[in-house]
Amino acid sequence: MASTVSPEIERLIALLSKLPGLGPRSARRAALDLIKKRDGLMRPLAGAMAEAAEKISTCGICGNVDAQNPCHICVAPGRDMTTICVVQEVGDLWAMERAGAFRGQYHVLGGTLSALDGVRPEDLNIAGLIERAKQDGVKEVILAMNATVDGQTTAHYITDHLEQTDVTISRLAHGVPVGGELDFLDDGTIAAAMKSRRPF
Amino acid sequence: MASTVSPEIERLIALLSKLPGLGPRSARRAALDLIKKRDGLMRPLAGAMAEAAEKISTCGICGNVDAQNPCHICVAPGRDMTTICVVQEVGDLWAMERAGAFRGQYHVLGGTLSALDGVRPEDLNIAGLIERAKQDGVKEVILAMNATVDGQTTAHYITDHLEQTDVTISRLAHGVPVGGELDFLDDGTIAAAMKSRRPF
Repeated sequence: MASTVSPEIERLIALLSKLPGLGPRSARRAALDLIKKRDGLMRPLAGAMAEAAEKISTCGICGNVDAQNPCHICVAPGRDMTTICVVQEVGDLWAMERAGAFRGQYHVLGGTLSALDGVRPEDLNIAGLIERAKQDGVKEVILAMNATVDGQTTAHYITDHLEQTDVTISRLAHGVPVGGELDFLDDGTIAAAMKSRRPF
Repeated sequence: MASTVSPEIERLIALLSKLPGLGPRSARRAALDLIKKRDGLMRPLAGAMAEAAEKISTCGICGNVDAQNPCHICVAPGRDMTTICVVQEVGDLWAMERAGAFRGQYHVLGGTLSALDGVRPEDLNIAGLIERAKQDGVKEVILAMNATVDGQTTAHYITDHLEQTDVTISRLAHGVPVGGELDFLDDGTIAAAMKSRRPF
């Protein structure tokens, strides 16, 4: 594209194509769309990014991202201080909040242990979790990692290291997703749902 | 999400989700990725957008977008001044340049006529094309609109209005795409390819 477009547009496309979900082709489309909507989209988005880069930081307690540190969830009055829900990523915390099924504290690990990717315990925010679990008043740690091999390996590692504390450790239930059809589920999920069946 | 994320992040997600190719879910992923890569991606992208919003404008001659006006293609020495290739959008101009099969001038219409979407001739840069076609030295106008109903309607409209000039009007060939398999082609393309068959 060197001679096709101006360096400014080329740089915009190159950076846009680094966003997850945008390849080179969709980055070009996005760049053209931005240029078309200069005042309606490009300037506001540039401003929003600059503002977020300035204001957003990682919560020193839970690892959430927010304009305040500690984050608004950690300091929210009325949230249950006795329960910590451990998630892999901030996106999982958001998903949990959207579901509205949990009103306690969070702890974001920042990933999972992975031999393949060389992620070791010290690369994740596990030490912070153990410190928090030792604090007075914490009664339960809910492990809400993804139901993947790496997620469950991490859950086991954390369980081992929380045994020295007095907290109850729980995990999310496995089973048939609400609205899910048996025919499309993998065998592991069906087996787990059968094993954990409940009185009707 | 009102209570889940800070207003700054919410605004970033809302604007990102307006980009073509990004829905609400991928906009959230993109926002988190940007926050993670604050200095590597978010600040540079914000800068690139602000710079593009400042510097990039539409070429007064052909409708291309560039940091200079007239654009670098319109003023490039050594390009054929006798031929104008008419395309729907700037992205089509870029695609044509990437293919490297054309070294003349361009004219970007900015869309196609569409009864459904209420796009009329005066909404497109058609008058400018007719003015350019009347200029001394212009010998050929190549209609390179998409091979869609709207694209071809627009081509016919332009052809009608160029009859008053002396230029030759041509269009891109229809046929089997290079690398294409007959079994996957629509009937119209096969029929067009058969009709325009050439000696081997």
